[in-house]
Amino acid sequence: MKYQSPKGTRDFTPEEMILREFVMSRIKKVFESYGFDSIETSVFEDLEVLNAKSGEEVSKQIFKIETEKDRKLGLRFDLTVPMARFLANNPQLPKPFKRYAIAPVWRYEEPQAGRMRQFYQADIDICGSSSMEADVECIACALDCLKILGFKNLRVKLNDRKVLEGFIEFIKKKIPAEVKIEFSDLPIFRAIDKLGKIGIDGVRKELEKIGLRPRQIEELLKIIKVKGTFPEGLERLKKLLQGISVGMDGLKELEQIFELSKFYGISSLLVPDFSMARGLDYYTGPIFEIEVESEKKIGSIAGGGRYDNLIELLGGRFTPATGISLGIERVIEIMKEEKMVDLAKTRVKVFVANVNEKVKPDAVKIAQDLRKVGINCQVDLMGRNLSKQLQFVDEMKIPFALILGEREIKSKKFKLRDMENKKELELSLEEIIKKLKESH
Amino acid sequence: MKYQSPKGTRDFTPEEMILREFVMSRIKKVFESYGFDSIETSVFEDLEVLNAKSGEEVSKQIFKIETEKDRKLGLRFDLTVPMARFLANNPQLPKPFKRYAIAPVWRYEEPQAGRMRQFYQADIDICGSSSMEADVECIACALDCLKILGFKNLRVKLNDRKVLEGFIEFIKKKIPAEVKIEFSDLPIFRAIDKLGKIGIDGVRKELEKIGLRPRQIEELLKIIKVKGTFPEGLERLKKLLQGISVGMDGLKELEQIFELSKFYGISSLLVPDFSMARGLDYYTGPIFEIEVESEKKIGSIAGGGRYDNLIELLGGRFTPATGISLGIERVIEIMKEEKMVDLAKTRVKVFVANVNEKVKPDAVKIAQDLRKVGINCQVDLMGRNLSKQLQFVDEMKIPFALILGEREIKSKKFKLRDMENKKELELSLEEIIKKLKESH
Repeated sequence: MKYQSPKGTRDFTPEEMILREFVMSRIKKVFESYGFDSIETSVFEDLEVLNAKSGEEVSKQIFKIETEKDRKLGLRFDLTVPMARFLANNPQLPKPFKRYAIAPVWRYEEPQAGRMRQFYQADIDICGSSSMEADVECIACALDCLKILGFKNLRVKLNDRKVLEGFIEFIKKKIPAEVKIEFSDLPIFRAIDKLGKIGIDGVRKELEKIGLRPRQIEELLKIIKVKGTFPEGLERLKKLLQGISVGMDGLKELEQIFELSKFYGISSLLVPDFSMARGLDYYTGPIFEIEVESEKKIGSIAGGGRYDNLIELLGGRFTPATGISLGIERVIEIMKEEKMVDLAKTRVKVFVANVNEKVKPDAVKIAQDLRKVGINCQVDLMGRNLSKQLQFVDEMKIPFALILGEREIKSKKFKLRDMENKKELELSLEEIIKKLKESH
Repeated sequence: MKYQSPKGTRDFTPEEMILREFVMSRIKKVFESYGFDSIETSVFEDLEVLNAKSGEEVSKQIFKIETEKDRKLGLRFDLTVPMARFLANNPQLPKPFKRYAIAPVWRYEEPQAGRMRQFYQADIDICGSSSMEADVECIACALDCLKILGFKNLRVKLNDRKVLEGFIEFIKKKIPAEVKIEFSDLPIFRAIDKLGKIGIDGVRKELEKIGLRPRQIEELLKIIKVKGTFPEGLERLKKLLQGISVGMDGLKELEQIFELSKFYGISSLLVPDFSMARGLDYYTGPIFEIEVESEKKIGSIAGGGRYDNLIELLGGRFTPATGISLGIERVIEIMKEEKMVDLAKTRVKVFVANVNEKVKPDAVKIAQDLRKVGINCQVDLMGRNLSKQLQFVDEMKIPFALILGEREIKSKKFKLRDMENKKELELSLEEIIKKLKESH
């Protein structure tokens, strides 16, 4: 082939689009039922905005756009940062501001199975509320999206950046104060977050690179493996973080989330996971990931958390905020693998075939009548004979053919062929419309 | 403000999104009724693909993306070129291939009123049919989209690139063969197409620059002003282009379009306009623009044409193709100016207010019940008292509030307040659901 879709991107055929739009429209409906409205920003932002709080690794993955006179631009790497910039620019909007967006984002990284350079996210965010109920509502809404799409065996991993900060306070105390080592929290969070990918030895090496002492590393690795089930299991951690106020605040947030999740009937799905840190730098409180157990493996299909400082950082008023993002590509991939839906191959419902050229104008008229009542149809545009037309209908997997000759025009009874079982019915146009509207 | 939406782009608030999505979903439905399926490609393409047949001016307007190792990329400037590249890559798809796409495109030009750097187009294309009926179907479908949105006073300007080529043959003959001047057709087409913008003197200057002789220029300017109504008016042009086969072919195509348009009931809207050339280089046959007469001015809101060589040029098999593109931004702009719709300010239908903290869990339960039946609702996430909650409902322009206290929980009759007229009804949850589903 002379040209292809650029590396790390792909084209979606009509058949694939039917599945993609099915998934996105279901998600959209659930988002709207939770009272989220949509906004849209442009696909690119000032690089400064994108770099403000993304973190070193994501920052490297931004697609940069060449512009001569203007400020440097980049394609957005998520939907949260543009939304935060939007809200910083629109302080007049009533709070809480609940918005959703279902849209593509881009990351310039080496493409691999399941990781493309252009991929869709479906995000909801609640801005202006510091209540943990906002976090719970986001989680509940995302769970409902997945349940409606047919996902089962879901669980929500929970952690809190404040708890993680508490851990770091804790291990700092393990070294005498006079041996002062400088390191910031964020690289440690990013290292911990890789546990699933690079294993305990990998994380150990990363922590060494950052400059942690062996004793600190071992203590940290021990804590993040604590299985602290709700609500009692957290007691052990409370003892550990006694006196470290940031850590205690984080644990309290997690407890609140657990209590509030009972209102939403989702508390049984919540599991603390103290090794989860999430990759982005902007989180400030609870963080969460939704996992699904499928045939072979467990994978994260949604993730988010609280980012109370981002909107202010981008020039807005202080606005506490939280949100969650569904990974559309992962969701679709699993739905295909597990054959969770069986959809049509085309949106065309019926092909109005003409037995000869003479009746073509009548075929067009009937097609126009069907279109007016919302029935998707095609007529022949290739001057083909009837058998060639029906061959096309088969190839396209169009479910019905309406076959039109002079006799049918006179009698006003038309042949409707069900292409699957090849059965034909003689029906009036009204009956055909009724039948086609009922079929799906 | 610290940061803003990048130059030439803008943010869309929830209220604006409701209008945008209304417009796009209506158009989508009409596209689908005509038997078009959707495809999607990535927002960027290899620069080579974009430059293949766009023409000098558009080529300058491509946003370029920095990539290190890969081929150079650019953001798409229209939806036709990526579709043609897609079809070149997918020769297995049955023909005619009818696809639609409603998506943003980008042009790096100086922003001005009504011309942004990111804007949406809604495109349909029919590939594989050389019949003029494909062109007519595209025009009819675009007209139906506009009619369904409430547009009146529409007309379709028609021309043909072959007719324009005929004009150039014609004026070449006006100069003795020995005075050979080299010029290609495309810059002339682009110059002619600017008539509406830069006037006759502007076009004259552009043609001088290209190298046409004064006599040729005057002849050309005279022809392109010919008012050749259908069908008789074209006779004058036929005489003029007698013996110039390309020109005669073009006139025949226009006549066929006129004849076929009668089947679709749109022939009275068709008007030939021989000064219309359209800006892109890939057209090979009929070209068309839909204009609307609004309060003050006449503006083009859709345009397209036939491009029989583009798919082959991008590495595919020879595939005749035609299509039309609706300018979503212009459509929306006019609909706002002319107040053609009056839509809700938010998608939220009802706010479930709690009179105190004690009944909050019940408010959540009711909200979850409403969400399950597809009613969009919000609950308080700010710990506000009732009057503050209702103030928010007012600010957000949410149409209804369901007010919940202990008495209501016991009696299972709830107060539903219509926020517009402040009237309250006492209803069961089933009655509330019925009422909310009926209201719009």
